[in-house]
Amino acid sequence: MKIAVDAMGGDNAPEAIVSGVMLAKKDFPELEFQLYGKEAEIKKYVTDESNITVIHTDEKVDSEDEPVRAIRRKKQASMVLAAQAVKKGEADACFSAGNTGALLAAGLFIVGRIKGIERPGLMSTLPVIGENRGFDMLDLGANAENKAEHLLKYGILGSFYAANVRKVENPRVGLLNNGTEESKGSEVTKKAFELLTNEASINFVGNIESRDILNGVADVVVTDGFTGNAVLKSIEGTALNITKLLKQSILDEGVKGKLGALLLKNALGGLKNEMDYSKYGGAVLFGVKSPVIKTHGATEPEAVAATIRQIHTMLETKVVEKLTEQFERDDAAN
Amino acid sequence: MKIAVDAMGGDNAPEAIVSGVMLAKKDFPELEFQLYGKEAEIKKYVTDESNITVIHTDEKVDSEDEPVRAIRRKKQASMVLAAQAVKKGEADACFSAGNTGALLAAGLFIVGRIKGIERPGLMSTLPVIGENRGFDMLDLGANAENKAEHLLKYGILGSFYAANVRKVENPRVGLLNNGTEESKGSEVTKKAFELLTNEASINFVGNIESRDILNGVADVVVTDGFTGNAVLKSIEGTALNITKLLKQSILDEGVKGKLGALLLKNALGGLKNEMDYSKYGGAVLFGVKSPVIKTHGATEPEAVAATIRQIHTMLETKVVEKLTEQFERDDAAN
Repeated sequence: MKIAVDAMGGDNAPEAIVSGVMLAKKDFPELEFQLYGKEAEIKKYVTDESNITVIHTDEKVDSEDEPVRAIRRKKQASMVLAAQAVKKGEADACFSAGNTGALLAAGLFIVGRIKGIERPGLMSTLPVIGENRGFDMLDLGANAENKAEHLLKYGILGSFYAANVRKVENPRVGLLNNGTEESKGSEVTKKAFELLTNEASINFVGNIESRDILNGVADVVVTDGFTGNAVLKSIEGTALNITKLLKQSILDEGVKGKLGALLLKNALGGLKNEMDYSKYGGAVLFGVKSPVIKTHGATEPEAVAATIRQIHTMLETKVVEKLTEQFERDDAAN
Repeated sequence: MKIAVDAMGGDNAPEAIVSGVMLAKKDFPELEFQLYGKEAEIKKYVTDESNITVIHTDEKVDSEDEPVRAIRRKKQASMVLAAQAVKKGEADACFSAGNTGALLAAGLFIVGRIKGIERPGLMSTLPVIGENRGFDMLDLGANAENKAEHLLKYGILGSFYAANVRKVENPRVGLLNNGTEESKGSEVTKKAFELLTNEASINFVGNIESRDILNGVADVVVTDGFTGNAVLKSIEGTALNITKLLKQSILDEGVKGKLGALLLKNALGGLKNEMDYSKYGGAVLFGVKSPVIKTHGATEPEAVAATIRQIHTMLETKVVEKLTEQFERDDAAN
């Protein structure tokens, strides 16, 4: 298994990326890595050269670059070369912590869509609060709008991922809607409800509300890219603000606060750990021909290693191949 | 000023509703209340009869009733009678803690839309975390989908409310979108961006993301009803889950946890108070001819009193009359 790595993407590149690869190598000594980027900088952090190939390039996609233009014009950018390696069959998967839009464009235009999946979706595994498990949600923003047919595909895609990669038995697929009743929703969600209900290959459990997703009402949450993006950012913003407020309130209490915080160190630490979903890996652009994974821009080595673990599972379980086969079979049958 | 009250709506009715009215009466002895519902039950909680009229009815809208059907068929329901009182001019505003959909239907079909406002929106004042102020957001779910033109109206409506009722000078209006760049969004938000930019009567500050709204990036957040509903419920779900998790983690720590929690009592209490936006009152169905306000179903007397304070300000500032005049003027000019 070969993984093409954009070593220059993200705020802490290349240090965090390369250090993360080094961490992951310990668990998966058989994995081969191609690191794209500035050779001299990358090599500083390569502590074990076995199965590591560094491919030098000076160019990189910047966070403020317009995504599609960057992919088309910066032909030698580390991210573009990593995606090209996957396209040419020189690598089995690629990942980057860089410009999300550009990575989505690289996935769609370089790696390419699976036949039958018109609109690949961005999917993450998010935490079920207080339980040691997650749920998959898509689309988190690969698309600015979606049709009901796309949502049906997201149900199938998410279910495939939950069953194969996360080993969830008969995953419950829920449709994010503005109420749980069957009659609820916009034109798109009403039609999607019907399509999902009639899809025999998945375990559709009906409409769910964003209030309940962190409680684990479904193993797979299906939504359009605009709503998914807004919901994910709402969860992140709320969690961040509450944590910040709690810290400030503790500081305001002076010595009493510090003592209280010391006594509650485990409890407060558990809260942080609970909300940190980078332990499940990165966001998958799901529906393209090979795993294309986005890690958070401000990523640390541990999160990079978690992402490599995730990619390893995706490759080992052949989830993308299986998905491709099923869609090709369906396509041939129609 | 006369307020028509659905005394039977919500989980704790009529006790919480009537007790809240009694609380509010102390601050606003001049307000007149019409309490609709079961007379014998209501009277148990009326501790001061001045300016209180109880209008007996046995019928009420239940939480599981289909909204539009309930409004059409349950002609004698306490909520319907309260809305009728407003329509007939016997009351200046109405409020309920009952079935949200039914109250929206009562507002639209009984109280009626302001000419020029095709789709009234549900608006709440939400908290800016760590600061003693709020922001207004609409539509929170009165509509399952909206056109760009509706979002323009929400910008005007929200701005009107923030300026008149909350006394915010030149309120900053932001459009909730999937990125802050001008080019971002769905067809609807792209067009709304253009319409809001060209609207001279408001201070439009551009696209904002749901991650930042609790930080107060705008005084008015404009969004379609589907997204607004999903974002509000995400914020509520996340806050609730974090609080629950924190409590559980503290309990798991045993004596140490209890001691820590005791020392942090103020800090933890501040967190709860900060997230509780019922202090700003209820959700306004904004764009109908008189104030129609929804209070949370599980409301307590304090929240009912806060809602009455809000209604008092809305009536005193004549915000709905001013809005109606402006839209009629615009309508005449076109």
